[in-house]
Amino acid sequence: MCVRASFVVLPQQRMTCQCQEVMSLFSGELVQVKNPYLDGMEEDILYHLSLSTKTHNLPEMFGDIKFVCVGGSANRMKAFAQFIHKELELNGNPEEVSDICEATDRYCMYKVGPVLSISHGMGVPSISIMLHELIKLLHHAQCRDVVLFRLGTSGGVGLAPGTVVVTDKAVDYSFLPQFEQVVLGKVITRSTELDEGVAKELLQCSSELQNFPTVIGNTLCTHDFYEGQGRLDGALCSFSHEDKLEYLRKAYEAGVRNIEMESSVFAAMCRVCGLKGAVVCVALLNRFDGDQITATHDVLVEYQQRPQILVSHFIKKRLGYVV
Amino acid sequence: MCVRASFVVLPQQRMTCQCQEVMSLFSGELVQVKNPYLDGMEEDILYHLSLSTKTHNLPEMFGDIKFVCVGGSANRMKAFAQFIHKELELNGNPEEVSDICEATDRYCMYKVGPVLSISHGMGVPSISIMLHELIKLLHHAQCRDVVLFRLGTSGGVGLAPGTVVVTDKAVDYSFLPQFEQVVLGKVITRSTELDEGVAKELLQCSSELQNFPTVIGNTLCTHDFYEGQGRLDGALCSFSHEDKLEYLRKAYEAGVRNIEMESSVFAAMCRVCGLKGAVVCVALLNRFDGDQITATHDVLVEYQQRPQILVSHFIKKRLGYVV
Repeated sequence: MCVRASFVVLPQQRMTCQCQEVMSLFSGELVQVKNPYLDGMEEDILYHLSLSTKTHNLPEMFGDIKFVCVGGSANRMKAFAQFIHKELELNGNPEEVSDICEATDRYCMYKVGPVLSISHGMGVPSISIMLHELIKLLHHAQCRDVVLFRLGTSGGVGLAPGTVVVTDKAVDYSFLPQFEQVVLGKVITRSTELDEGVAKELLQCSSELQNFPTVIGNTLCTHDFYEGQGRLDGALCSFSHEDKLEYLRKAYEAGVRNIEMESSVFAAMCRVCGLKGAVVCVALLNRFDGDQITATHDVLVEYQQRPQILVSHFIKKRLGYVV
Repeated sequence: MCVRASFVVLPQQRMTCQCQEVMSLFSGELVQVKNPYLDGMEEDILYHLSLSTKTHNLPEMFGDIKFVCVGGSANRMKAFAQFIHKELELNGNPEEVSDICEATDRYCMYKVGPVLSISHGMGVPSISIMLHELIKLLHHAQCRDVVLFRLGTSGGVGLAPGTVVVTDKAVDYSFLPQFEQVVLGKVITRSTELDEGVAKELLQCSSELQNFPTVIGNTLCTHDFYEGQGRLDGALCSFSHEDKLEYLRKAYEAGVRNIEMESSVFAAMCRVCGLKGAVVCVALLNRFDGDQITATHDVLVEYQQRPQILVSHFIKKRLGYVV
């Protein structure tokens, strides 16, 4: 596959793209919102991104976006923007990427060629606000054929620390692939199955890299870090070590390989809006062995780069940088 | 009430404190954790605060804390730290308050005399992680008689923008004063009633200030900003304008005066750990009139200062700065 020359400076040998391939980028699927009111609004203020349809030319700013990478930590998503800038060999100084949402401290956002890198904070509600406003942004900007990635950290379930998990299904505390959303006081249930093709493509990328172990597995998405994940080291703990291990064992039997706090709403919203999405998280510890994250700073930094390296390889393949 | 001279330089006339009052500060209630495993741990790493019992002398750093103020935005909690620094007439430059958690970008934390100011991000899971680690911090530091405040922004329900709401009860989507917590795959329910005395004291403070309208009311705590709050301007919306108004009317009838996203777990955890807590949020708009936050930047900044001014007055009264 090849890219539009407008957003990325490619080495000369990669410029011999096929017209058919270029056209497919223009004729692909528009990002869909599922809200009949939206297009009738005179102005749409994306409050938590500090952007608006009146004050910003969103098609001009974002119309060429093909890959959106989101992650909890603002620093990490800035680092990813700098990393992908170098990997795509773009013009300009990678150190000088600037935060598009600098007028607010809720999220940060960096655009690097066809890649958008955004932070989402911790937990389902925090990423949910960002996803609503991101999907509206992609809609207003008339983006097509966008792939979304969540790059995160997680607790491993029966995995060696450092293993990368590509999520098959995001499951709830009962290990069901569903997300409960309250709408006007009523609970509705949405599916949390992710795009199988993108997950397999990521696994293929990992086999080409051979830098670190990568598996496909289910991801348990919880609404807190301590009691919901069976940690014995929170301010509150009413269960035994054996109770914890039993819950983790049940999770493992249900195909769960890691635990984090955002995948369910990410999967549900991607699915409802027809976006291809993938969740790629590194395991910082094996929860069968403990609760506290005791690895050294340097080791944690290296682990956190692994999802970035994998997704960067995926993007480079899609853009024709790697055959 | 008076304070220990060690943590705050008071004007001379305020130094004539009664020994009895000073003693009561030392003999008050210790902050309680509800976890039998905690005191047996060799080290407790407060991972998301980048603090640990081995690498930091927590009693020395935090032992004199009497008031903890938390809020979603990192910038706003820094501004509050600078504001309270001036209000308490402390030594040093208020502009130079430093972030105790600067080694992580998950939360920021500032200590100003007996006041701790911490950001918590958006949503129940995000504040929940911070509260677990904060309560453990206060426990390890052997703090006594601590009052916790959440200072936030919210959508008003039948209130003029700019009105400050002191929460009576935090209610869920069914308007019940409860918080559902998943523990090892089972849902348990916790009460979300807040301290009545502190709420009344805050209302008394507001009547002394007469700067802005303040009411006591119930606060609806939701897990998202769009569908759960009945907004018509999200990426997803499956209900009508009339459905939205009906839900808001029901909320109003149930005593709800504002909607935000953190109060329920804040109230529940304060209650379980025996901490006196209050939620003080300004309404940025009246949700009966719309969904988007359209006030100008300057107006929003002024609104956001109101909970800070109110809580600052409370703290100054408790410390004997104001009679």
